[in-house]
Amino acid sequence: MRRATSIGGLQAGTILAGLLLAAAAPAQVALSRGGDPRLEPPRAAAAGDTQHSEEVSDVTATEEPLHLGIVLYPGFEPLDVFGPLEMFMNVGSERLRIHLIAEHAGLVPTSTGGYASSIAPKVEASVSLADAPPLDIIMVPGGFGTLQQLHNETLLAWLRERAPRARLVTSVCSGSAILAKAGILDGKKATSNKQLFSYLAAQGPAVDWQKSARWVEDGAIITSSGVSAGIDMALAVIAKLFGAETAEQIAAGTEYQWHRDSAEDPFTQYLDRGLEGLTGTARTDG
Amino acid sequence: MRRATSIGGLQAGTILAGLLLAAAAPAQVALSRGGDPRLEPPRAAAAGDTQHSEEVSDVTATEEPLHLGIVLYPGFEPLDVFGPLEMFMNVGSERLRIHLIAEHAGLVPTSTGGYASSIAPKVEASVSLADAPPLDIIMVPGGFGTLQQLHNETLLAWLRERAPRARLVTSVCSGSAILAKAGILDGKKATSNKQLFSYLAAQGPAVDWQKSARWVEDGAIITSSGVSAGIDMALAVIAKLFGAETAEQIAAGTEYQWHRDSAEDPFTQYLDRGLEGLTGTARTDG
Repeated sequence: MRRATSIGGLQAGTILAGLLLAAAAPAQVALSRGGDPRLEPPRAAAAGDTQHSEEVSDVTATEEPLHLGIVLYPGFEPLDVFGPLEMFMNVGSERLRIHLIAEHAGLVPTSTGGYASSIAPKVEASVSLADAPPLDIIMVPGGFGTLQQLHNETLLAWLRERAPRARLVTSVCSGSAILAKAGILDGKKATSNKQLFSYLAAQGPAVDWQKSARWVEDGAIITSSGVSAGIDMALAVIAKLFGAETAEQIAAGTEYQWHRDSAEDPFTQYLDRGLEGLTGTARTDG
Repeated sequence: MRRATSIGGLQAGTILAGLLLAAAAPAQVALSRGGDPRLEPPRAAAAGDTQHSEEVSDVTATEEPLHLGIVLYPGFEPLDVFGPLEMFMNVGSERLRIHLIAEHAGLVPTSTGGYASSIAPKVEASVSLADAPPLDIIMVPGGFGTLQQLHNETLLAWLRERAPRARLVTSVCSGSAILAKAGILDGKKATSNKQLFSYLAAQGPAVDWQKSARWVEDGAIITSSGVSAGIDMALAVIAKLFGAETAEQIAAGTEYQWHRDSAEDPFTQYLDRGLEGLTGTARTDG
């Protein structure tokens, strides 16, 4: 497997964050999943699905990793992607394989803080939407680029096709507005970025939007609050699929103080503050 | 400037995390710095430099952004880079310009969790070490790849040359071992990843290693604890250079619960736990 590399006399797979896995016997961190979700009937988009976490996982070990697709688009928020990605990678490539997916494979500029794409950091999408493998988990990040993606029929159609075949469909921050626009959240409880909440919520009038929540789980759909909340959601997903102990080890190894209560949202106080900024005091130095 | 773009009828610079800046009048978030640090005498490597935060900044506005260079290398830890990067980007490109720098420009694979470079997410280094512009701030992340960089004389020589000319030299996680190996931390207080502390600290016998700290500031050197601690350090750097209000707005906009006390380290309990894992229970399924 991929953990045999030896560098400086130390075993690769046990160094730094990877050491988290070394502390646990394989039996303790056995992949908790049942069967191949890609062969199961559609679930994510089934209305009225109120299935609980516990029902998704079992303790069947398997040789096959789960496949997680993280959607990139120009102007994605960097931490929306890389917070969860840090946690998900630490599950280990033999148990969870991550694919960075975009409409076209190649470099995708992140953006925030007014960074133009010409000078913004860029991340490689290794595969296009069209060529993406079957996915057990889909994650849609938010960011400034969300606004354009709300009108990207290629992405919306891809989500409508792929979501029902995934075990879990997740979003971070304004990513939930994209899921809402695709109709995937209709009739579901969901949340989003706090400071632009009403604007984003308007993208899905049939969604049961939750104003105060760090993240919201409704059946196979898990949406998180703004930016950093994605990290807490990712750890909750890891606990759900791979066990709480794995999630706790990853949080400890990455020295992250995991907020485990999805209902505790210290940022509700900023609800729609960004919308005020958009109307009254928008900067004109552009 | 770069904030004029209008998408969907909303001003780009005020959307999502960018809205943070919109809420504050330019005078409130005026760039706090004095002169051009690249023209000032060497400071970062000056032994016995115990300068305090307050002395670095003043409230002089300027048209010139500060330049931050984040060093990438194969096997960097994703959140070590993208946690701080999220916060630093939100300062705004007109005040802080970020450069992702590697020995060679091009794609650099991250790694953790045993991901081989062939399947690991990749990030673009836009410029090589040799071609990097003058830098006001340098940041060295940690990660599994640290072990190789401890023997990369090209990087170590670059750091020795560039650090004295930078206003601030920072590191996340095991990145401090690289700074230590380059001799930049000699005689300085510094910290590092908790779970591999003793191994990393051994890279700099002349360093005054601090076992318990979220981050440590000693003059122009700021080192942080493992992975997530880099986010807290980045916000402290932002407060130092651009004012506490800017840092608070960025933390609120990214819905991040900033740990402001550099001395509060809940992960000291895991000190050297990773080293135990390396000896007794290292996995052999590689």
